[in-house]
Amino acid sequence: MLTLDKVYLAGAELRSVVRKTDLIRADALSRNCEVFLKTENLQKTGSFKVRGAYYKMSNMTQEERERGVVACSAGNHAQGVALAAQKFGIRSVIFLPNGAPISKIEATRALGAEIMLVDGVYDDAYEAAIQYCADNHMVFLHPFDDVDVIAGQSTVALEVLEQLPDLEAIVVPIGGGGLIAGIAFAIKAMRPSCKVYGVQAAGADSMKRSFDDKCHYFAETVSTFADGIAVKNPGDLTYDICMDYVDEIVTVTEDQTATAILTLMERQKLVAEGAGAVAVAAIMFNKLPIAGKKVCAVISGGNIDVNILSRVINRGLVTSGRLTNLTIELIDKPGQLKNVSALIADQGANVISVQYTPGGPNMDINGCYLHISMETRNHAHLEQIRKAINDSGLCIRDL
Amino acid sequence: MLTLDKVYLAGAELRSVVRKTDLIRADALSRNCEVFLKTENLQKTGSFKVRGAYYKMSNMTQEERERGVVACSAGNHAQGVALAAQKFGIRSVIFLPNGAPISKIEATRALGAEIMLVDGVYDDAYEAAIQYCADNHMVFLHPFDDVDVIAGQSTVALEVLEQLPDLEAIVVPIGGGGLIAGIAFAIKAMRPSCKVYGVQAAGADSMKRSFDDKCHYFAETVSTFADGIAVKNPGDLTYDICMDYVDEIVTVTEDQTATAILTLMERQKLVAEGAGAVAVAAIMFNKLPIAGKKVCAVISGGNIDVNILSRVINRGLVTSGRLTNLTIELIDKPGQLKNVSALIADQGANVISVQYTPGGPNMDINGCYLHISMETRNHAHLEQIRKAINDSGLCIRDL
Repeated sequence: MLTLDKVYLAGAELRSVVRKTDLIRADALSRNCEVFLKTENLQKTGSFKVRGAYYKMSNMTQEERERGVVACSAGNHAQGVALAAQKFGIRSVIFLPNGAPISKIEATRALGAEIMLVDGVYDDAYEAAIQYCADNHMVFLHPFDDVDVIAGQSTVALEVLEQLPDLEAIVVPIGGGGLIAGIAFAIKAMRPSCKVYGVQAAGADSMKRSFDDKCHYFAETVSTFADGIAVKNPGDLTYDICMDYVDEIVTVTEDQTATAILTLMERQKLVAEGAGAVAVAAIMFNKLPIAGKKVCAVISGGNIDVNILSRVINRGLVTSGRLTNLTIELIDKPGQLKNVSALIADQGANVISVQYTPGGPNMDINGCYLHISMETRNHAHLEQIRKAINDSGLCIRDL
Repeated sequence: MLTLDKVYLAGAELRSVVRKTDLIRADALSRNCEVFLKTENLQKTGSFKVRGAYYKMSNMTQEERERGVVACSAGNHAQGVALAAQKFGIRSVIFLPNGAPISKIEATRALGAEIMLVDGVYDDAYEAAIQYCADNHMVFLHPFDDVDVIAGQSTVALEVLEQLPDLEAIVVPIGGGGLIAGIAFAIKAMRPSCKVYGVQAAGADSMKRSFDDKCHYFAETVSTFADGIAVKNPGDLTYDICMDYVDEIVTVTEDQTATAILTLMERQKLVAEGAGAVAVAAIMFNKLPIAGKKVCAVISGGNIDVNILSRVINRGLVTSGRLTNLTIELIDKPGQLKNVSALIADQGANVISVQYTPGGPNMDINGCYLHISMETRNHAHLEQIRKAINDSGLCIRDL
């Protein structure tokens, strides 16, 4: 059973192992409330997961430790378990689905874990892990539905209350619910007036449905780029604790999460993964009744694949009018490209790629399309360029 | 004159104003030494500049404050001055060249500064600022060559020595030299055994040349994407202090700086600007005699334009074999795209763009080029794909 004693014990146990991550006031996000960021993306292994994994192992018997641990994860849990096992000198075997990002596989391996890649998706890797664990008499480390793991995650709340004693609300990402269960329990025990809000991706909202309907809900599929919280089935224990201690659970869309990631990079200089950014997204897009309050958003992790980060940035640049693709209809005769180029240069935009393609069947036989990618300052700047192109007699095709 | 008293006074003055930024142990960078990052990119306004600006204003007379301050900057100094002026309730007028990134202009304006955009480059803005300052009897705030500004920047060293008393070396970016002058003076006064190293961009190395030749050098032009340290002329005061207290100055290339930015994002979850990443680049590329030592790299700022960040990420992805552009020669007949697509899918790569263009004059008349961009796992994965394409009888054109 989770007790306040266990929370404090976990805090004491972890003090010399995990980083007490900084709590940073986010001026750029503080419009109608005062927002603080708990930067668990700057935690060792890039997420809070090492807290629960380490505290769990600290409670294992010597005999259990000698048998070693098995875990299944595509990301943060894997690295948390690997680092904790390394600290204890325990053998760790981590099962991952074959498509897991190579950066996460390599980071886990670098922490001394044995890696088992399984063809298929997460569920296949999970089955294999359970089987391997039974065959080899090892200890399976559940990513969230475990009282010691939850107690380990609760230490995030201990630190936040120490860093900001007059906290009025805390906003926490939810996947399986381990982090919010620990945080909600500790907060309501130590500062009952403080609200605890959970945030899920709209495409992976099983805990929200369970919470709202007061009935454990199991999703057939999940769909979100926030892989750290793409969980089909909330834990039994975490569900019960959420029902008792969480005030409300909301969801955010993929675009809102992407915007939050971009804002955290641009304004706070922090890299957050999708799961890590949903709490900030919920605040930015006014999903929560927090006006005038001192609010902590937990950035749970920063392990985002750079390919995805690059796409998130590009989407954000397009959304904010700073990156634009225009297709212009031209008559294919000398000098046309020069004219368009001069026109765009005069407007102060920066062309980054140009491509000609032949025109369609209902165009002039000499017609062609000019596809231009350019960097612009904002939507107003873009409109000014569109107007200049139109004024010059050329035609922009909106695709 | 810079004195240790002034350093301590600045520390006391700034305590309630600036963030004591976290010092983070960087496991991923600690190969043959132990690397700690002083995260001034997480400072208010995204760089250390607010320290010097605020301490300077705290030493101005009431009469000077009433006249207001003028500054010229394309970035970090602008925001630092604007925030400090806002805290004192002083009028601030900031001159910027017209091409400055709109994000920085807006951030400065949001801090209450009056913005003056000047056609031309930095030097033109500087001339206009000096003229305006004289005409309006205001106080010009030099970005680095000022004893109070330097004392303000020195407080970075005070914090680092408190956070890591047994520091053995500190690595500091250099533009005009304000930051390293303050840090070097404080370090050598308080912990003389600690080495102080400076890092410049290879394309903007006037302080290094001055230091090595023991003769103040003025560069005609500078060329680096690290705009925060693109300075032609080292300060007189900062040059003198560097000569007395700095151990060595090295340079890093643009690619090395870009790699450091990508590494800081991927492994440390921190966004650094070019200027902010050069110290890390110097460590990563073994420019300094620091093996076995406890080393602090100062990440001086994180104000990088997202457009540039996006390009840095893309360059890094290509360099590390995770983003690839291939051009394949095809005979233009039905089914060819399907065959190539199947081939690439079988290899587990992710196609992100495809483009057909007509072949060259010495190809089959039905020939065409297929340009494919795809995400790959690493160089080995890419080689495996190239081999599979070649084995299928298709020809890859290296451009």
